[in-house]
Amino acid sequence: MATNNATCWVGVDLGGTKILAGVFDARLKLLGTAKVSTRAERGVETVLERIERCVREALEAAGRKLLQVKAVGIGAPGAVDGDRSTVLFAPNLPGWRRIPLGQQLAKALERPVVVGNDANVCTLGVHEVEWNRQPRHLVGIFVGTGIGGGLILDGRLYEGASFTAAEVGHMILEVNGPKCGCGNRGCWEALASRTAIYRRLREAVETGEKTVLTEWLGPELTDLRSNELRKAWEQDDKLVHRILLQTADYLGLGVANLVNLLNPEVVVLGGGLLQALGEALMPRIVETARQCIIPGSERNLKIVPSRLGDEAGIIGAAVLARLSHDNNHTTDRAPRNG
Amino acid sequence: MATNNATCWVGVDLGGTKILAGVFDARLKLLGTAKVSTRAERGVETVLERIERCVREALEAAGRKLLQVKAVGIGAPGAVDGDRSTVLFAPNLPGWRRIPLGQQLAKALERPVVVGNDANVCTLGVHEVEWNRQPRHLVGIFVGTGIGGGLILDGRLYEGASFTAAEVGHMILEVNGPKCGCGNRGCWEALASRTAIYRRLREAVETGEKTVLTEWLGPELTDLRSNELRKAWEQDDKLVHRILLQTADYLGLGVANLVNLLNPEVVVLGGGLLQALGEALMPRIVETARQCIIPGSERNLKIVPSRLGDEAGIIGAAVLARLSHDNNHTTDRAPRNG
Repeated sequence: MATNNATCWVGVDLGGTKILAGVFDARLKLLGTAKVSTRAERGVETVLERIERCVREALEAAGRKLLQVKAVGIGAPGAVDGDRSTVLFAPNLPGWRRIPLGQQLAKALERPVVVGNDANVCTLGVHEVEWNRQPRHLVGIFVGTGIGGGLILDGRLYEGASFTAAEVGHMILEVNGPKCGCGNRGCWEALASRTAIYRRLREAVETGEKTVLTEWLGPELTDLRSNELRKAWEQDDKLVHRILLQTADYLGLGVANLVNLLNPEVVVLGGGLLQALGEALMPRIVETARQCIIPGSERNLKIVPSRLGDEAGIIGAAVLARLSHDNNHTTDRAPRNG
Repeated sequence: MATNNATCWVGVDLGGTKILAGVFDARLKLLGTAKVSTRAERGVETVLERIERCVREALEAAGRKLLQVKAVGIGAPGAVDGDRSTVLFAPNLPGWRRIPLGQQLAKALERPVVVGNDANVCTLGVHEVEWNRQPRHLVGIFVGTGIGGGLILDGRLYEGASFTAAEVGHMILEVNGPKCGCGNRGCWEALASRTAIYRRLREAVETGEKTVLTEWLGPELTDLRSNELRKAWEQDDKLVHRILLQTADYLGLGVANLVNLLNPEVVVLGGGLLQALGEALMPRIVETARQCIIPGSERNLKIVPSRLGDEAGIIGAAVLARLSHDNNHTTDRAPRNG
């Protein structure tokens, strides 16, 4: 049994608005967490300090000391050079260009720190904790305000030539479709994220369609969250049903594209939207996807929701810390990028 | 210098209508070729006999004997279990389900035979011969009547969980777009293959638009080939220009999707359409793709045409033969699929 003197891992989920940290024992059991707001607008130094504070608070909550931490893993929202634990750029963190986050935090905490892209890190966590590393090829898809993804190919995280692989959210599915934040049209996340659902609901309400959501949130649908969508779904709100099923179809088409390209054993869907609405959306996502997947890739494929929930980010980051630590202590470490 | 007694490799390009075989020296210099029609409608046995005949004729043309052949490689048009050299299914070869092509031909020729998917094999050839195995991540795209693809990821051919990865032609780019041969709508090959060009030209001609092509081929545009498209392009045929540029845009969007997903160093475009019309199409393909690729993946990316031409298939198959032979004679052979 783990004692208070046992070693532990720390996983940090660095987001645009909040930072989560979790302390995990050797078997990745969660011992304690902490949450602080990011305050990204105050600049890089502030965020670094807040990450450090969040880690220290999580350790306090878990009753562990820094010296017991074998390594800290961080999932960051952007392109990350995993070999150098450097954030190359992060659209939602102003000023973050080539920030050696790993190095700087390692100095502050005096512990090893390793950094990866957030969706990649979540996929690592899903592969390790939910799937016990069994599938050789697994695609992770995380749907919230955007759509992020991660690829486990040949048993390892695939990051591409410059650490920007798995940008699934910017896969174009509808030429001349709705405008995406990236500037293109018809990207998957412009069609199937919570942002897309919000846009469709607003458009429908503006043309006079009725929904219970306007009673709850007003005509602007201010602060629409996944939980309200779920409640409206459960009350059989017609507009919400129609728009969520349409969204599920788009999610299914994107899944089909990924499967036709990568022929994985497993596709896992997670993130806030799926967490709140998985039961409503999954059957339709799977049905639409399977209709569009070529027979040879469809047969032994599993398309399933993740059960890691809100903790996927910190669990994945702890897995990243452990993997990195293990790799540094074996001789057959294969470099991932040439 | 190679003598007549030196060993050689044979590469076979098995197509739905014709079989090509090439004999290559140790440095992959082409020594001789042969071509026979496939006669797929006559069944599996006939095709096997014709492949054997084609190999023997190519050896005769090259002035080599079977005993000098170190290994035979074959690219087959369908899903291929590369570990067992078995064709799992091949849409254009009636009756081909789980045919142990490698084993059967090895028995007939008394030489080792290895089989792969045709587009994968072409990609291997491009990676080895055109790129000297330098890019760790390379995407091959081959545009003809359909669109095939191959992925080199982490330096090796990526085949997926059941040997059906890289079905790039069935990536959906336009929800509710034109119907594809696979039954879905808006697949890449329904938008950007020669078949798609033909469909658009026919539709335009039916609505009364003028093109020099009808003068050459009649109103049905019977037997339209890439070379006629090139001639019409060179004569500044307005309709052909418009439709080819539209096709180039679709090709560029598909390239962007693949790059955003896989972040390769190199994307190579080949196949009959690109061979005939590369000069016309490539600038627009590259321009459209680069507009849609996320900055981090775009910076050091090369998008280029293949120069292997008609011989890509037999060169790739010879490379497959050599790779397989080399792998069988080293101890660190890593299995590609678990």
